[in-house]
Amino acid sequence: MQIIKSPEEMQRLALDLKRSGQTIGFVPTMGFLHDGHLSLMRLARPKCDVLVVSIFVNPTQFGPNEDLDAYPRDFERDEQLCADESVDMIFYPEPGNMYAAGASVWVDEESLSGVLCGESRPGHFRGVCTVVAKLFNLVQPDLAVFGEKDAQQLRIIERMVRDLNFPIEIVRGPILREADGLAMSSRNKYLSAEQRKNALCLRRSLDAVCLNFEQGEKNVSSLRKTMAELIDAVSGAEIDYISFVDDASLEPVESVQFSTLVALAVKFGSTRLIDNTILVP
Amino acid sequence: MQIIKSPEEMQRLALDLKRSGQTIGFVPTMGFLHDGHLSLMRLARPKCDVLVVSIFVNPTQFGPNEDLDAYPRDFERDEQLCADESVDMIFYPEPGNMYAAGASVWVDEESLSGVLCGESRPGHFRGVCTVVAKLFNLVQPDLAVFGEKDAQQLRIIERMVRDLNFPIEIVRGPILREADGLAMSSRNKYLSAEQRKNALCLRRSLDAVCLNFEQGEKNVSSLRKTMAELIDAVSGAEIDYISFVDDASLEPVESVQFSTLVALAVKFGSTRLIDNTILVP
Repeated sequence: MQIIKSPEEMQRLALDLKRSGQTIGFVPTMGFLHDGHLSLMRLARPKCDVLVVSIFVNPTQFGPNEDLDAYPRDFERDEQLCADESVDMIFYPEPGNMYAAGASVWVDEESLSGVLCGESRPGHFRGVCTVVAKLFNLVQPDLAVFGEKDAQQLRIIERMVRDLNFPIEIVRGPILREADGLAMSSRNKYLSAEQRKNALCLRRSLDAVCLNFEQGEKNVSSLRKTMAELIDAVSGAEIDYISFVDDASLEPVESVQFSTLVALAVKFGSTRLIDNTILVP
Repeated sequence: MQIIKSPEEMQRLALDLKRSGQTIGFVPTMGFLHDGHLSLMRLARPKCDVLVVSIFVNPTQFGPNEDLDAYPRDFERDEQLCADESVDMIFYPEPGNMYAAGASVWVDEESLSGVLCGESRPGHFRGVCTVVAKLFNLVQPDLAVFGEKDAQQLRIIERMVRDLNFPIEIVRGPILREADGLAMSSRNKYLSAEQRKNALCLRRSLDAVCLNFEQGEKNVSSLRKTMAELIDAVSGAEIDYISFVDDASLEPVESVQFSTLVALAVKFGSTRLIDNTILVP
Protein backbone atom coordinates (compact mmCIF):
# COMPACT_ATOMS: atom_id res chain seq x y z
CA MET A 1 0.00 0.00 0.00
CA GLN A 2 1.37 3.39 -1.01
CA ILE A 3 0.94 6.55 1.08
CA ILE A 4 0.93 9.58 -1.20
CA LYS A 5 1.08 13.05 0.27
CA SER A 6 1.76 15.16 -2.81
CA PRO A 7 -1.24 16.09 -5.00
CA GLU A 8 1.05 16.26 -8.05
CA GLU A 9 2.38 12.76 -7.42
CA MET A 10 -1.15 11.42 -6.81
CA GLN A 11 -2.29 12.83 -10.16
CA ARG A 12 0.79 11.56 -12.02
CA LEU A 13 0.31 8.04 -10.64
CA ALA A 14 -3.43 8.11 -11.40
CA LEU A 15 -2.90 9.26 -14.99
CA ASP A 16 -0.27 6.54 -15.48
CA LEU A 17 -2.73 3.94 -14.20
CA LYS A 18 -5.47 5.20 -16.53
CA ARG A 19 -3.08 5.22 -19.47
CA SER A 20 -2.23 1.59 -18.79
CA GLY A 21 -5.94 0.74 -18.90
CA GLN A 22 -6.49 0.15 -15.17
CA THR A 23 -9.67 1.25 -13.41
CA ILE A 24 -9.55 3.33 -10.25
CA GLY A 25 -12.04 3.11 -7.38
CA PHE A 26 -12.13 5.94 -4.87
CA VAL A 27 -13.41 6.42 -1.32
CA PRO A 28 -12.92 10.00 -0.10
CA THR A 29 -12.87 10.32 3.69
CA MET A 30 -11.88 12.74 6.44
CA GLY A 31 -10.14 9.86 8.25
CA PHE A 32 -10.74 8.53 11.77
CA LEU A 33 -12.16 5.54 9.95
CA HIS A 34 -14.96 3.37 11.27
CA ASP A 35 -16.86 0.40 9.89
CA GLY A 36 -19.02 2.77 7.84
CA HIS A 37 -15.97 3.86 5.86
CA LEU A 38 -14.72 0.29 5.61
CA SER A 39 -18.06 -0.80 4.15
CA LEU A 40 -17.57 1.78 1.38
CA MET A 41 -14.13 0.34 0.64
CA ARG A 42 -15.60 -3.16 0.51
CA LEU A 43 -18.18 -1.93 -2.01
CA ALA A 44 -15.48 -0.38 -4.22
CA ARG A 45 -12.82 -3.12 -3.94
CA PRO A 46 -14.31 -5.72 -6.34
CA LYS A 47 -15.32 -3.03 -8.86
CA CYS A 48 -11.84 -1.63 -9.65
CA ASP A 49 -8.23 -2.57 -10.28
CA VAL A 50 -6.76 0.05 -7.98
CA LEU A 51 -8.49 1.29 -4.83
CA VAL A 52 -7.59 4.76 -3.56
CA VAL A 53 -8.76 6.15 -0.21
CA SER A 54 -8.20 9.82 0.54
CA ILE A 55 -7.84 11.08 4.10
CA PHE A 56 -8.23 14.84 4.20
CA VAL A 57 -9.97 16.95 6.80
CA ASN A 58 -11.05 19.63 4.35
CA PRO A 59 -10.96 23.09 5.97
CA THR A 60 -13.25 24.74 3.39
CA GLN A 61 -16.29 22.69 4.39
CA PHE A 62 -16.12 23.71 8.06
CA GLY A 63 -17.79 26.89 9.25
CA PRO A 64 -15.94 29.37 11.47
CA ASN A 65 -17.54 27.99 14.67
CA GLU A 66 -17.37 24.33 13.71
CA ASP A 67 -15.07 21.53 14.81
CA LEU A 68 -12.22 21.71 12.25
CA ASP A 69 -9.41 21.74 14.82
CA ALA A 70 -11.14 19.29 17.15
CA TYR A 71 -12.04 16.86 14.36
CA PRO A 72 -10.62 13.49 15.45
CA ARG A 73 -7.51 12.23 13.66
CA ASP A 74 -5.53 8.97 13.92
CA PHE A 75 -3.56 8.31 10.78
CA GLU A 76 -1.66 5.25 12.01
CA ARG A 77 -4.86 3.46 12.90
CA ASP A 78 -6.46 4.55 9.60
CA GLU A 79 -3.44 3.23 7.71
CA GLN A 80 -3.76 -0.21 9.29
CA LEU A 81 -7.51 -0.34 8.61
CA CYS A 82 -6.94 0.55 4.94
CA ALA A 83 -4.24 -2.09 4.62
CA ASP A 84 -6.67 -4.66 6.06
CA GLU A 85 -9.18 -3.71 3.32
CA SER A 86 -6.59 -4.21 0.55
CA VAL A 87 -6.52 -0.53 -0.28
CA ASP A 88 -3.75 0.19 -2.83
CA MET A 89 -3.11 3.86 -2.16
CA ILE A 90 -3.90 6.32 0.60
CA PHE A 91 -3.92 9.91 -0.61
CA TYR A 92 -3.07 11.94 2.48
CA PRO A 93 -2.35 15.55 1.52
CA GLU A 94 -1.60 18.56 3.70
CA PRO A 95 -4.18 21.40 3.53
CA GLY A 96 -1.41 23.75 2.39
CA ASN A 97 -0.74 21.55 -0.64
CA MET A 98 -4.40 21.22 -1.56
CA TYR A 99 -5.25 24.92 -1.64
CA ALA A 100 -2.97 27.47 -3.29
CA ALA A 101 -2.60 30.84 -1.57
CA GLY A 102 -5.29 33.01 -3.14
CA ALA A 103 -7.34 30.08 -4.41
CA SER A 104 -10.41 31.67 -5.98
CA VAL A 105 -12.33 29.02 -7.92
CA TRP A 106 -15.32 27.33 -6.30
CA VAL A 107 -17.87 24.76 -7.34
CA ASP A 108 -21.35 25.73 -6.24
CA GLU A 109 -24.51 23.66 -6.27
CA GLU A 110 -27.48 26.00 -6.15
CA SER A 111 -30.63 23.93 -6.02
CA LEU A 112 -30.13 21.12 -3.50
CA SER A 113 -27.76 22.92 -1.13
CA GLY A 114 -29.98 25.46 0.60
CA VAL A 115 -32.09 23.05 2.67
CA LEU A 116 -31.34 20.53 5.46
CA CYS A 117 -27.68 20.71 6.50
CA GLY A 118 -27.07 23.51 4.00
CA GLU A 119 -29.37 25.75 6.00
CA SER A 120 -27.52 25.08 9.27
CA ARG A 121 -24.08 25.11 7.65
CA PRO A 122 -23.85 27.91 5.05
CA GLY A 123 -20.93 27.36 2.66
CA HIS A 124 -20.56 23.73 3.73
CA PHE A 125 -21.58 22.16 0.40
CA ARG A 126 -19.59 24.68 -1.58
CA GLY A 127 -16.54 23.44 0.32
CA VAL A 128 -17.58 19.83 -0.24
CA CYS A 129 -18.22 20.26 -3.99
CA THR A 130 -14.96 22.12 -4.49
CA VAL A 131 -12.78 19.62 -2.66
CA VAL A 132 -14.51 16.64 -4.28
CA ALA A 133 -14.00 18.19 -7.75
CA LYS A 134 -10.33 18.66 -6.88
CA LEU A 135 -10.01 15.11 -5.56
CA PHE A 136 -11.73 13.72 -8.66
CA ASN A 137 -9.21 15.53 -10.86
CA LEU A 138 -6.29 14.34 -8.73
CA VAL A 139 -7.36 10.71 -8.26
CA GLN A 140 -9.03 10.23 -11.69
CA PRO A 141 -11.47 7.60 -10.44
CA ASP A 142 -13.78 5.50 -12.62
CA LEU A 143 -16.07 5.07 -9.64
CA ALA A 144 -16.38 6.73 -6.25
CA VAL A 145 -18.37 5.57 -3.24
CA PHE A 146 -20.27 7.95 -0.95
CA GLY A 147 -22.29 6.94 2.08
CA GLU A 148 -26.05 7.32 2.32
CA LYS A 149 -25.73 8.66 5.85
CA ASP A 150 -24.74 11.98 4.30
CA ALA A 151 -27.85 11.88 2.13
CA GLN A 152 -27.76 15.48 0.97
CA GLN A 153 -24.05 15.36 0.20
CA LEU A 154 -24.56 12.21 -1.84
CA ARG A 155 -27.29 13.81 -3.94
CA ILE A 156 -25.27 16.99 -4.43
CA ILE A 157 -22.22 15.01 -5.57
CA GLU A 158 -24.39 13.03 -7.99
CA ARG A 159 -25.72 16.34 -9.33
CA MET A 160 -22.20 17.74 -9.69
CA VAL A 161 -21.08 14.66 -11.61
CA ARG A 162 -24.04 15.05 -13.95
CA ASP A 163 -23.82 18.81 -14.43
CA LEU A 164 -20.03 19.03 -14.84
CA ASN A 165 -19.86 15.78 -16.84
CA PHE A 166 -17.33 14.00 -14.65
CA PRO A 167 -16.76 10.54 -16.19
CA ILE A 168 -17.32 8.88 -12.83
CA GLU A 169 -19.88 6.39 -11.54
CA ILE A 170 -21.13 7.32 -8.07
CA VAL A 171 -21.92 4.28 -5.94
CA ARG A 172 -24.20 4.69 -2.91
CA GLY A 173 -23.08 2.97 0.28
CA PRO A 174 -25.87 2.01 2.74
CA ILE A 175 -25.82 3.46 6.25
CA LEU A 176 -23.92 1.31 8.74
CA ARG A 177 -25.15 1.26 12.33
CA GLU A 178 -23.80 0.28 15.71
CA ALA A 179 -25.44 -2.79 17.29
CA ASP A 180 -27.96 -0.56 19.08
CA GLY A 181 -28.90 1.35 15.91
CA LEU A 182 -26.85 4.57 16.11
CA ALA A 183 -25.58 5.50 12.66
CA MET A 184 -21.79 5.25 12.55
CA SER A 185 -20.00 8.58 12.48
CA SER A 186 -16.57 9.86 13.42
CA ARG A 187 -18.37 12.48 15.49
CA ASN A 188 -19.94 9.82 17.78
CA LYS A 189 -16.58 9.91 19.56
CA TYR A 190 -17.48 13.34 20.96
CA LEU A 191 -20.48 11.96 22.89
CA SER A 192 -20.41 11.40 26.66
CA ALA A 193 -21.76 8.03 27.88
CA GLU A 194 -25.05 9.76 28.72
CA GLN A 195 -25.25 11.50 25.32
CA ARG A 196 -24.31 8.27 23.53
CA LYS A 197 -27.33 6.58 25.11
CA ASN A 198 -29.63 9.52 24.37
CA ALA A 199 -28.44 9.68 20.75
CA LEU A 200 -30.48 6.55 20.02
CA CYS A 201 -33.49 8.85 19.73
CA LEU A 202 -32.48 9.66 16.13
CA ARG A 203 -32.89 6.09 15.00
CA ARG A 204 -35.93 5.53 17.21
CA SER A 205 -37.69 8.52 15.66
CA LEU A 206 -36.94 7.18 12.16
CA ASP A 207 -38.24 3.74 13.11
CA ALA A 208 -41.41 5.35 14.48
CA VAL A 209 -41.98 7.38 11.33
CA CYS A 210 -41.54 4.28 9.15
CA LEU A 211 -44.06 2.41 11.27
CA ASN A 212 -46.58 5.29 11.14
CA PHE A 213 -46.11 5.51 7.39
CA GLU A 214 -46.62 1.77 6.94
CA GLN A 215 -49.80 2.09 8.95
CA GLY A 216 -51.09 4.57 6.40
CA GLU A 217 -50.12 8.01 7.68
CA LYS A 218 -48.95 10.22 4.79
CA ASN A 219 -49.39 13.66 6.29
CA VAL A 220 -46.00 15.20 6.95
CA SER A 221 -47.09 17.44 9.85
CA SER A 222 -48.35 14.38 11.67
CA LEU A 223 -45.31 12.26 10.83
CA ARG A 224 -42.96 15.03 11.89
CA LYS A 225 -44.84 15.50 15.16
CA THR A 226 -44.28 11.83 16.05
CA MET A 227 -40.55 12.26 15.52
CA ALA A 228 -40.27 15.59 17.32
CA GLU A 229 -42.11 14.28 20.38
CA LEU A 230 -39.79 11.31 20.68
CA ILE A 231 -36.71 13.50 20.45
CA ASP A 232 -37.96 16.32 22.64
CA ALA A 233 -38.61 13.74 25.37
CA VAL A 234 -34.88 13.01 25.52
CA SER A 235 -32.85 15.15 27.88
CA GLY A 236 -30.14 17.22 26.15
CA ALA A 237 -31.37 16.54 22.62
CA GLU A 238 -31.86 19.72 20.61
CA ILE A 239 -33.50 19.37 17.19
CA ASP A 240 -31.66 21.22 14.41
CA TYR A 241 -34.09 20.07 11.74
CA ILE A 242 -36.51 17.28 10.88
CA SER A 243 -37.24 17.51 7.16
CA PHE A 244 -39.39 15.64 4.70
CA VAL A 245 -38.21 16.39 1.18
CA ASP A 246 -38.67 14.95 -2.29
CA ASP A 247 -35.90 12.40 -2.68
CA ALA A 248 -34.76 13.81 -6.03
CA SER A 249 -35.28 17.58 -5.77
CA LEU A 250 -34.91 17.91 -1.96
CA GLU A 251 -37.90 20.23 -2.03
CA PRO A 252 -40.13 20.08 1.07
CA VAL A 253 -43.26 17.98 0.76
CA GLU A 254 -46.47 18.16 2.77
CA SER A 255 -47.56 14.62 2.07
CA VAL A 256 -45.66 11.45 1.17
CA GLN A 257 -46.80 10.89 -2.43
CA PHE A 258 -43.44 10.03 -3.99
CA SER A 259 -40.10 8.79 -2.67
CA THR A 260 -39.48 11.02 0.32
CA LEU A 261 -36.23 11.55 2.17
CA VAL A 262 -36.74 11.97 5.91
CA ALA A 263 -33.61 13.61 7.29
CA LEU A 264 -32.86 14.96 10.71
CA ALA A 265 -30.06 16.64 12.61
CA VAL A 266 -30.00 16.69 16.40
CA LYS A 267 -27.48 18.36 18.67
CA PHE A 268 -26.18 16.95 21.92
CA GLY A 269 -24.19 19.77 23.49
CA SER A 270 -21.91 20.90 20.66
CA THR A 271 -22.08 17.57 18.83
CA ARG A 272 -24.42 17.51 15.87
CA LEU A 273 -25.59 14.10 14.60
CA ILE A 274 -27.51 13.33 11.42
CA ASP A 275 -29.50 10.35 10.20
CA ASN A 276 -32.09 9.67 7.52
CA THR A 277 -34.38 7.17 5.86
CA ILE A 278 -36.45 7.03 2.69
CA LEU A 279 -40.21 6.50 2.63
CA VAL A 280 -41.37 4.84 -0.60
CA PRO A 281 -45.14 4.86 -1.22
CA MET B 1 -12.34 13.90 -39.42
CA GLN B 2 -15.18 12.87 -37.12
CA ILE B 3 -18.11 15.13 -36.24
CA ILE B 4 -19.40 14.23 -32.80
CA LYS B 5 -22.66 15.69 -31.54
CA SER B 6 -23.33 13.60 -28.48
CA PRO B 7 -21.51 14.56 -25.25
CA GLU B 8 -21.65 10.93 -24.08
CA GLU B 9 -20.03 9.72 -27.31
CA MET B 10 -17.39 12.44 -27.14
CA GLN B 11 -16.45 11.38 -23.63
CA ARG B 12 -16.42 7.69 -24.47
CA LEU B 13 -14.12 8.28 -27.46
CA ALA B 14 -11.86 10.54 -25.43
CA LEU B 15 -11.55 8.03 -22.57
CA ASP B 16 -10.76 5.27 -25.08
CA LEU B 17 -8.03 7.43 -26.60
CA LYS B 18 -6.55 8.17 -23.18
CA ARG B 19 -6.66 4.49 -22.23
CA SER B 20 -4.73 3.65 -25.37
CA GLY B 21 -2.04 6.14 -24.35
CA GLN B 22 -2.82 8.85 -26.91
CA THR B 23 -2.61 12.55 -26.05
CA ILE B 24 -5.48 14.91 -26.82
CA GLY B 25 -5.13 18.56 -27.80
CA PHE B 26 -8.18 20.80 -27.54
CA VAL B 27 -9.27 24.12 -29.00
CA PRO B 28 -12.66 25.22 -27.66
CA THR B 29 -14.47 27.71 -29.92
CA MET B 30 -17.88 29.21 -30.52
CA GLY B 31 -17.44 28.57 -34.25
CA PHE B 32 -17.56 31.05 -37.14
CA LEU B 33 -13.86 30.35 -37.33
CA HIS B 34 -11.28 32.86 -38.47
CA ASP B 35 -7.49 32.83 -38.74
CA GLY B 36 -7.25 33.53 -35.01
CA HIS B 37 -8.91 30.19 -34.25
CA LEU B 38 -6.85 28.45 -36.91
CA SER B 39 -3.65 29.77 -35.34
CA LEU B 40 -4.70 28.08 -32.07
CA MET B 41 -5.21 24.79 -33.92
CA ARG B 42 -1.75 25.14 -35.51
CA LEU B 43 -0.28 25.64 -32.05
CA ALA B 44 -1.97 22.51 -30.71
CA ARG B 45 -1.51 20.22 -33.74
CA PRO B 46 2.18 19.27 -33.26
CA LYS B 47 1.76 18.88 -29.49
CA CYS B 48 -0.82 16.06 -29.49
CA ASP B 49 -1.84 12.79 -31.14
CA VAL B 50 -5.50 13.70 -31.52
CA LEU B 51 -6.74 17.26 -32.05
CA VAL B 52 -10.29 18.07 -30.97
CA VAL B 53 -12.03 21.37 -31.76
CA SER B 54 -15.34 22.13 -30.09
CA ILE B 55 -17.91 24.39 -31.70
CA PHE B 56 -20.52 25.45 -29.18
CA VAL B 57 -22.18 28.83 -28.77
CA ASN B 58 -22.58 28.53 -25.02
CA PRO B 59 -25.81 30.15 -23.85
CA THR B 60 -24.76 30.49 -20.20
CA GLN B 61 -21.99 32.99 -20.95
CA PHE B 62 -24.32 35.43 -22.71
CA GLY B 63 -26.24 38.04 -20.73
CA PRO B 64 -29.98 38.57 -21.29
CA ASN B 65 -29.38 41.55 -23.59
CA GLU B 66 -26.40 40.13 -25.44
CA ASP B 67 -26.02 38.65 -28.90
CA LEU B 68 -26.66 34.92 -28.29
CA ASP B 69 -29.24 34.53 -31.03
CA ALA B 70 -27.45 36.82 -33.45
CA TYR B 71 -24.04 35.25 -32.88
CA PRO B 72 -22.76 34.27 -36.34
CA ARG B 73 -22.80 30.57 -37.25
CA ASP B 74 -21.59 28.70 -40.34
CA PHE B 75 -20.90 25.07 -39.55
CA GLU B 76 -20.15 23.90 -43.08
CA ARG B 77 -17.47 26.50 -43.53
CA ASP B 78 -16.08 25.74 -40.05
CA GLU B 79 -15.97 22.04 -40.90
CA GLN B 80 -13.90 22.67 -44.02
CA LEU B 81 -11.50 24.97 -42.16
CA CYS B 82 -10.98 22.33 -39.45
CA ALA B 83 -10.37 19.64 -42.06
CA ASP B 84 -7.74 21.89 -43.65
CA GLU B 85 -5.98 22.14 -40.26
CA SER B 86 -5.89 18.34 -39.86
CA VAL B 87 -8.31 18.43 -36.95
CA ASP B 88 -9.29 14.86 -35.96
CA MET B 89 -12.62 15.51 -34.27
CA ILE B 90 -15.12 18.34 -34.14
CA PHE B 91 -17.27 18.23 -31.02
CA TYR B 92 -20.47 20.00 -32.04
CA PRO B 93 -23.14 19.52 -29.36
CA GLU B 94 -26.65 20.93 -29.11
CA PRO B 95 -27.27 23.26 -26.13
CA GLY B 96 -30.05 20.91 -24.97
CA ASN B 97 -27.56 18.05 -24.71
CA MET B 98 -24.95 20.10 -22.86
CA TYR B 99 -27.20 21.36 -20.06
CA ALA B 100 -29.64 19.08 -18.26
CA ALA B 101 -33.02 20.55 -17.33
CA GLY B 102 -32.53 21.93 -13.84
CA ALA B 103 -28.75 22.06 -14.10
CA SER B 104 -27.63 23.60 -10.81
CA VAL B 105 -23.85 23.27 -10.51
CA TRP B 106 -21.64 26.19 -11.44
CA VAL B 107 -17.95 26.93 -11.41
CA ASP B 108 -17.23 30.40 -10.09
CA GLU B 109 -13.97 32.32 -10.14
CA GLU B 110 -14.15 35.04 -7.50
CA SER B 111 -10.97 37.05 -7.65
CA LEU B 112 -10.18 37.79 -11.31
CA SER B 113 -13.74 37.91 -12.62
CA GLY B 114 -15.10 41.16 -11.20
CA VAL B 115 -13.02 43.61 -13.24
CA LEU B 116 -12.69 44.39 -16.97
CA CYS B 117 -15.22 42.39 -19.00
CA GLY B 118 -16.60 40.84 -15.80
CA GLU B 119 -17.81 44.26 -14.72
CA SER B 120 -19.65 44.89 -18.00
CA ARG B 121 -20.87 41.32 -18.33
CA PRO B 122 -22.04 39.96 -14.94
CA GLY B 123 -22.24 36.16 -14.94
CA HIS B 124 -20.19 35.90 -18.13
CA PHE B 125 -17.14 34.21 -16.61
CA ARG B 126 -19.28 31.92 -14.48
CA GLY B 127 -20.79 30.68 -17.74
CA VAL B 128 -17.33 30.41 -19.29
CA CYS B 129 -15.79 28.52 -16.36
CA THR B 130 -18.72 26.15 -16.13
CA VAL B 131 -18.80 25.26 -19.82
CA VAL B 132 -15.01 24.93 -20.01
CA ALA B 133 -15.02 22.60 -16.97
CA LYS B 134 -17.72 20.54 -18.71
CA LEU B 135 -15.80 20.50 -22.00
CA PHE B 136 -12.61 19.50 -20.20
CA ASN B 137 -14.42 16.54 -18.63
CA LEU B 138 -15.97 15.54 -21.95
CA VAL B 139 -12.91 15.97 -24.18
CA GLN B 140 -10.27 14.89 -21.59
CA PRO B 141 -7.51 17.01 -23.14
CA ASP B 142 -3.85 16.89 -22.15
CA LEU B 143 -3.47 20.43 -23.44
CA ALA B 144 -5.90 23.17 -24.42
CA VAL B 145 -5.19 26.39 -26.32
CA PHE B 146 -6.84 29.70 -25.47
CA GLY B 147 -6.21 32.99 -27.28
CA GLU B 148 -4.57 35.98 -25.65
CA LYS B 149 -7.16 38.29 -27.18
CA ASP B 150 -9.52 37.15 -24.42
CA ALA B 151 -6.88 38.05 -21.85
CA GLN B 152 -9.10 37.89 -18.81
CA GLN B 153 -10.74 34.64 -19.88
CA LEU B 154 -7.30 33.10 -20.40
CA ARG B 155 -6.15 34.03 -16.91
CA ILE B 156 -9.40 32.82 -15.34
CA ILE B 157 -9.12 29.47 -17.12
CA GLU B 158 -5.51 29.14 -15.97
CA ARG B 159 -6.68 29.87 -12.42
CA MET B 160 -9.48 27.30 -12.71
CA VAL B 161 -7.05 24.65 -13.92
CA ARG B 162 -4.78 25.39 -10.97
CA ASP B 163 -7.49 25.61 -8.30
CA LEU B 164 -9.54 22.60 -9.42
CA ASN B 165 -6.41 20.56 -10.31
CA PHE B 166 -7.36 19.78 -13.89
CA PRO B 167 -4.48 17.71 -15.38
CA ILE B 168 -4.32 20.00 -18.40
CA GLU B 169 -1.62 22.24 -19.82
CA ILE B 170 -3.03 25.60 -20.94
CA VAL B 171 -1.22 27.01 -23.99
CA ARG B 172 -1.51 30.74 -24.73
CA GLY B 173 -2.14 31.66 -28.36
CA PRO B 174 -0.91 35.12 -29.43
CA ILE B 175 -3.43 37.64 -30.79
CA LEU B 176 -3.86 37.44 -34.55
CA ARG B 177 -4.63 40.67 -36.39
CA GLU B 178 -5.99 41.71 -39.76
CA ALA B 179 -3.48 43.38 -42.09
CA ASP B 180 -4.48 46.81 -40.78
CA GLY B 181 -4.12 45.80 -37.12
CA LEU B 182 -7.67 44.99 -35.99
CA ALA B 183 -7.66 41.98 -33.67
CA MET B 184 -9.48 39.07 -35.30
CA SER B 185 -12.89 38.32 -33.82
CA SER B 186 -16.08 36.65 -34.98
CA ARG B 187 -17.85 39.81 -33.88
CA ASN B 188 -15.97 41.95 -36.46
CA LYS B 189 -18.57 40.67 -38.89
CA TYR B 190 -21.18 42.87 -37.20
CA LEU B 191 -19.31 46.07 -38.13
CA SER B 192 -20.44 48.36 -40.95
CA ALA B 193 -17.73 49.53 -43.37
CA GLU B 194 -17.56 52.80 -41.47
CA GLN B 195 -17.37 51.08 -38.07
CA ARG B 196 -14.77 48.62 -39.40
CA LYS B 197 -12.51 51.55 -40.28
CA ASN B 198 -13.15 53.33 -36.98
CA ALA B 199 -12.46 50.13 -35.04
CA LEU B 200 -8.77 50.57 -35.77
CA CYS B 201 -8.71 53.03 -32.87
CA LEU B 202 -8.40 50.11 -30.42
CA ARG B 203 -5.08 49.02 -31.86
CA ARG B 204 -3.91 52.58 -32.42
CA SER B 205 -4.53 53.43 -28.77
CA LEU B 206 -2.56 50.35 -27.70
CA ASP B 207 0.32 51.31 -30.03
CA ALA B 208 0.29 54.81 -28.58
CA VAL B 209 0.37 53.58 -25.00
CA CYS B 210 3.29 51.26 -25.78
CA LEU B 211 5.20 54.15 -27.35
CA ASN B 212 4.47 56.45 -24.38
CA PHE B 213 5.57 53.73 -22.01
CA GLU B 214 8.80 53.11 -23.94
CA GLN B 215 9.47 56.82 -23.76
CA GLY B 216 9.37 56.56 -19.96
CA GLU B 217 5.78 57.32 -18.95
CA LYS B 218 4.71 55.00 -16.13
CA ASN B 219 1.79 56.94 -14.67
CA VAL B 220 -1.44 55.15 -15.48
CA SER B 221 -3.67 58.27 -15.45
CA SER B 222 -1.47 59.81 -18.09
CA LEU B 223 -1.21 56.62 -20.16
CA ARG B 224 -4.97 56.08 -20.01
CA LYS B 225 -5.60 59.69 -21.05
CA THR B 226 -3.56 59.16 -24.21
CA MET B 227 -5.68 56.17 -25.12
CA ALA B 228 -9.02 57.73 -24.23
CA GLU B 229 -8.30 60.85 -26.31
CA LEU B 230 -7.47 58.76 -29.36
CA ILE B 231 -10.67 56.74 -29.03
CA ASP B 232 -12.95 59.64 -28.11
CA ALA B 233 -11.80 61.40 -31.29
CA VAL B 234 -13.34 58.59 -33.35
CA SER B 235 -16.98 59.03 -34.28
CA GLY B 236 -19.28 56.31 -32.93
CA ALA B 237 -16.69 54.80 -30.60
CA GLU B 238 -17.94 54.44 -27.03
CA ILE B 239 -15.42 53.37 -24.42
CA ASP B 240 -16.67 50.55 -22.15
CA TYR B 241 -13.41 50.41 -20.20
CA ILE B 242 -9.70 51.11 -20.49
CA SER B 243 -7.98 49.27 -17.65
CA PHE B 244 -4.43 48.92 -16.41
CA VAL B 245 -4.20 45.90 -14.14
CA ASP B 246 -1.50 43.72 -12.64
CA ASP B 247 -0.96 40.94 -15.17
CA ALA B 248 -1.26 38.19 -12.54
CA SER B 249 -3.85 39.45 -10.05
CA LEU B 250 -5.85 41.70 -12.45
CA GLU B 251 -5.91 44.30 -9.68
CA PRO B 252 -5.83 47.91 -10.89
CA VAL B 253 -2.45 49.63 -10.78
CA GLU B 254 -1.68 53.34 -10.69
CA SER B 255 1.80 53.03 -12.07
CA VAL B 256 3.47 50.46 -14.32
CA GLN B 257 5.96 48.85 -11.91
CA PHE B 258 5.40 45.20 -12.81
CA SER B 259 3.98 43.37 -15.83
CA THR B 260 0.79 45.26 -16.55
CA LEU B 261 -2.11 44.17 -18.70
CA VAL B 262 -3.65 47.04 -20.64
CA ALA B 263 -7.11 45.95 -21.73
CA LEU B 264 -9.90 47.87 -23.36
CA ALA B 265 -13.42 47.33 -24.60
CA VAL B 266 -15.02 49.76 -27.03
CA LYS B 267 -18.54 49.68 -28.41
CA PHE B 268 -19.53 50.59 -31.96
CA GLY B 269 -23.29 50.64 -31.93
CA SER B 270 -24.23 47.34 -30.31
CA THR B 271 -20.94 45.66 -31.23
CA ARG B 272 -18.43 45.44 -28.41
CA LEU B 273 -14.78 44.86 -29.34
CA ILE B 274 -11.89 44.05 -27.02
CA ASP B 275 -8.12 44.19 -27.37
CA ASN B 276 -5.13 44.24 -25.05
CA THR B 277 -1.38 44.38 -24.68
CA ILE B 278 1.12 43.81 -21.89
CA LEU B 279 3.58 46.45 -20.68
CA VAL B 280 6.73 44.90 -19.21
CA PRO B 281 8.99 47.31 -17.28
